[in-house]
Amino acid sequence: MNRYPMPELKDVPEDIRQRILEVQEKSGFVPNVFLALAHRPAEFRAFFAYHDALMEKEGGLTKAEREMIVVATSGANQCQYCVVAHGAILRIRARNPLVADQVAINYRKADITPRQKAMLDFAMKVCLRSHEVDDADFAPLHAHGFSDEDIWDIAAITAFFGLSNRMASFSNMQPNPEFYLMGRVPKQKK
Amino acid sequence: MNRYPMPELKDVPEDIRQRILEVQEKSGFVPNVFLALAHRPAEFRAFFAYHDALMEKEGGLTKAEREMIVVATSGANQCQYCVVAHGAILRIRARNPLVADQVAINYRKADITPRQKAMLDFAMKVCLRSHEVDDADFAPLHAHGFSDEDIWDIAAITAFFGLSNRMASFSNMQPNPEFYLMGRVPKQKK
Amino acid sequence: MNRYPMPELKDVPEDIRQRILEVQEKSGFVPNVFLALAHRPAEFRAFFAYHDALMEKEGGLTKAEREMIVVATSGANQCQYCVVAHGAILRIRARNPLVADQVAINYRKADITPRQKAMLDFAMKVCLRSHEVDDADFAPLHAHGFSDEDIWDIAAITAFFGLSNRMASFSNMQPNPEFYLMGRVPKQKK
Amino acid sequence: MNRYPMPELKDVPEDIRQRILEVQEKSGFVPNVFLALAHRPAEFRAFFAYHDALMEKEGGLTKAEREMIVVATSGANQCQYCVVAHGAILRIRARNPLVADQVAINYRKADITPRQKAMLDFAMKVCLRSHEVDDADFAPLHAHGFSDEDIWDIAAITAFFGLSNRMASFSNMQPNPEFYLMGRVPKQKK
Amino acid sequence: MNRYPMPELKDVPEDIRQRILEVQEKSGFVPNVFLALAHRPAEFRAFFAYHDALMEKEGGLTKAEREMIVVATSGANQCQYCVVAHGAILRIRARNPLVADQVAINYRKADITPRQKAMLDFAMKVCLRSHEVDDADFAPLHAHGFSDEDIWDIAAITAFFGLSNRMASFSNMQPNPEFYLMGRVPKQKK
Amino acid sequence: MNRYPMPELKDVPEDIRQRILEVQEKSGFVPNVFLALAHRPAEFRAFFAYHDALMEKEGGLTKAEREMIVVATSGANQCQYCVVAHGAILRIRARNPLVADQVAINYRKADITPRQKAMLDFAMKVCLRSHEVDDADFAPLHAHGFSDEDIWDIAAITAFFGLSNRMASFSNMQPNPEFYLMGRVPKQKK
Repeated sequence: MNRYPMPELKDVPEDIRQRILEVQEKSGFVPNVFLALAHRPAEFRAFFAYHDALMEKEGGLTKAEREMIVVATSGANQCQYCVVAHGAILRIRARNPLVADQVAINYRKADITPRQKAMLDFAMKVCLRSHEVDDADFAPLHAHGFSDEDIWDIAAITAFFGLSNRMASFSNMQPNPEFYLMGRVPKQKK
Repeated sequence: MNRYPMPELKDVPEDIRQRILEVQEKSGFVPNVFLALAHRPAEFRAFFAYHDALMEKEGGLTKAEREMIVVATSGANQCQYCVVAHGAILRIRARNPLVADQVAINYRKADITPRQKAMLDFAMKVCLRSHEVDDADFAPLHAHGFSDEDIWDIAAITAFFGLSNRMASFSNMQPNPEFYLMGRVPKQKK
Repeated sequence: MNRYPMPELKDVPEDIRQRILEVQEKSGFVPNVFLALAHRPAEFRAFFAYHDALMEKEGGLTKAEREMIVVATSGANQCQYCVVAHGAILRIRARNPLVADQVAINYRKADITPRQKAMLDFAMKVCLRSHEVDDADFAPLHAHGFSDEDIWDIAAITAFFGLSNRMASFSNMQPNPEFYLMGRVPKQKK
Repeated sequence: MNRYPMPELKDVPEDIRQRILEVQEKSGFVPNVFLALAHRPAEFRAFFAYHDALMEKEGGLTKAEREMIVVATSGANQCQYCVVAHGAILRIRARNPLVADQVAINYRKADITPRQKAMLDFAMKVCLRSHEVDDADFAPLHAHGFSDEDIWDIAAITAFFGLSNRMASFSNMQPNPEFYLMGRVPKQKK
Repeated sequence: MNRYPMPELKDVPEDIRQRILEVQEKSGFVPNVFLALAHRPAEFRAFFAYHDALMEKEGGLTKAEREMIVVATSGANQCQYCVVAHGAILRIRARNPLVADQVAINYRKADITPRQKAMLDFAMKVCLRSHEVDDADFAPLHAHGFSDEDIWDIAAITAFFGLSNRMASFSNMQPNPEFYLMGRVPKQKK
Repeated sequence: MNRYPMPELKDVPEDIRQRILEVQEKSGFVPNVFLALAHRPAEFRAFFAYHDALMEKEGGLTKAEREMIVVATSGANQCQYCVVAHGAILRIRARNPLVADQVAINYRKADITPRQKAMLDFAMKVCLRSHEVDDADFAPLHAHGFSDEDIWDIAAITAFFGLSNRMASFSNMQPNPEFYLMGRVPKQKK
């Protein structure tokens, strides 16, 4: 279904193979985005360096909040791969089996805090009407305790996943079936 | 005017300083995007690695055509920094003092080839309605001689500069005054 | 969270209580739409009479296809209640744990037949630009074997759930938590 | 012109024939919507039950105000049948030969009260952006004296006629010529 | 209601007063646009010179067809004054009491010829997306027998009444009550 | 490239030739709009009479501010001819080589005064959503010292160049190459 060939693991450069093997080790499968982008090693490296710089860094946003931005952005851009894959990650990060679907469909009705709604309002403005962002958009974020560096994080995550959404949609990237159920069923204690 | 502080050259990491000095050497000034992004070194490195992977690579698109995609995308996203800065680069790459303004305002009326118009039609679909891209969008590109790898380039440049546009607009990045005139006045022979 | 009070079962008219008890018997819980609309008995009766006339009738559309129309329409209208609740029903009707999320996010990329895509293309035109529907929209449906009566069904389901979406969104109707997981986990044989 | 056959009065079920004869008795002609929907008796019954539950009920909205909502909604959806037919009813209910055209074209410029403008502002939000309705939309309505039940009426009428508009447009329903002039010429005293 | 003062007839320059008196003589009343624009004599003269150059000239469009363009344009721009006033003129020119409402609400469903629909399709593209007009838009017009000069007329009437619509809406120009009924009631023979 | 023939100077009526010769004398070349519109002498005369009534009059707007409105409007309408030609005039009138590109791409980021931003906010509402203009739009303009007559000027310039943009785009009018560089290079003292 993917429009471009996905290389086999044995054919990708060593550093990329290592990264993929680590993900496989951690998740139990290789998310298709890794193989799809491995088609272009230089872009693969830049993409994941950017991803990690935004998603793994310290700061005022929790990891779950970062994933909320990804899911809301991907919903606005109607990106199937990213809503399904990052919806799974959001459920796990937020330890909440319901929130990802809510944020993807209409974050305004999601069971999130007013601070998180303000965060997503801003993300959606950057996503859909970045040319209209002005000083008045920063005030409600400051009022909710976001620093200017946090606001950069919100904007940058939105912008980066706008790139990701366009790459996934244009190339018809398919979400792995595993993502659909991840984080939905509470793990049973043994 | 920039919403975030721009570091001084002496305060940025060595590899970033080297990159900036090279640009300064080549252009005669430091484009603001370099200092603005140097505020976040990890993002700086990923951004320019991605940029170079798309804009410096070999392939079926000329360097001028790559810049046309940047200018059309930036026009659609109403990004002041990118239209002005990449408009200058387009004029130089295309050795054409008129084409950048034409592409920025309405590429449909620009003095470019039918092949380039098809390229920009596709870029605009990725930019504005990526969720609607389907097989029928590839046919006219193939008919104009673009390979599937060229089409990936078109989509990826569009997606990457969509990220760039959002970062520049949200942070109120100002184009350097030098860009406005670059490539407009033919150099006189001595 | 619902903006309007939901009556208790003991306080609703007998015919409505019977309908609700039947649903509860079948599903194991009372979907919130039943209690929310029971606030207005006359509207409740008309709503479910309309619903049944469209969703329980014979015709060229399977029950799963009817639910695809509901989910695509509700996605286009960003209706949280209807995407979640009818997504569950679609998974069950189609015996497919993945299709509902796909159709809700972007039916163009969903793993459905070309006939079903044509059906949803038409539904989306009725949903979003009904004033532009013309003869040319009927041709591809006829080519896929839909009769004029089937086309009426597609349009009417789209129109009816557009009503439902607006009622649910305006009144802040919350999907029951049970819906989120229904149809995602294959039943185990005993 | 109607895309679907309209049954003859002698061929429709008895209860539907009675309803149609009553309308004919009262209006002097049979509005096409009755015959068009009689093509589907179960939908006909649900449609008019819903219609009557919203348009004939008691409450804080006058009958003219209910028709204003219908006309504004139908104008926003560019539905020829409903603007013409309900424009006639609005003129009669409001005893005002001018108001229907004003509301259909641009209710913001219509000669109506500020309370009625607030009502139509809310109706248009439900019609066009129901996913964005939030608490802030209720405040101006409360300030104008609308109760929560009145607001439900506004939303429900908007939602119901959105259904009606889509059915009429998709099926190319034609307004009866009689509607165009109704309520425009003051009746002369004898 | 008009936001700007309308001068009295005795206070306007002689040439403008003559023009207004002629209209009054012909119509039996002074349409408000004449007094509203007389507030600015130089603009008044240019406006009506432009109007006459487009609406009174010879060519392949009938006077009724020119008014159809005005009404469709004014409907798209939601201009109350122009839909009501030019709807009256269209009814009279076309000797058809129904066509103006049809064209104003949704010309695609109006009882007009395929040639007239093609004319209005083009007018709407000039009205709403003039930057996308290209050679392919001229072909269907040529096929219906429109010359290039006729096409200029269509575009120019659309463009001119786009100006008129904006002036009327911004200044809250009110249609005279007489317009609403004009051309609706057939004149009785004596 | 222009879709319609442009007459030669010797073939146009005397008054039009005089006007064109004056422009040529002043500018050093004949802007294409003059020859393009000379194809229709009556429209030419009305167009330039309207133009002069708005652009040459006294009032609270400077000539540079009038050109800002033209450039912002033409950018919003994506009109190549008018952005390029009036961009040149704006640079000259404002004695600022940068402001035209800034206003054309995104006036919100341009280096202009808050008063000028308010002026362009209003112009853009007239340009894009004139049916929504209401009293609340006048307050910020009054607060910045604009009189009601100045506001008429803003609206009328926006409306007139909306006409001009549509004529230029539909007819594929090409900006003269001279415009691109005008006002960009400071004149050297001798």
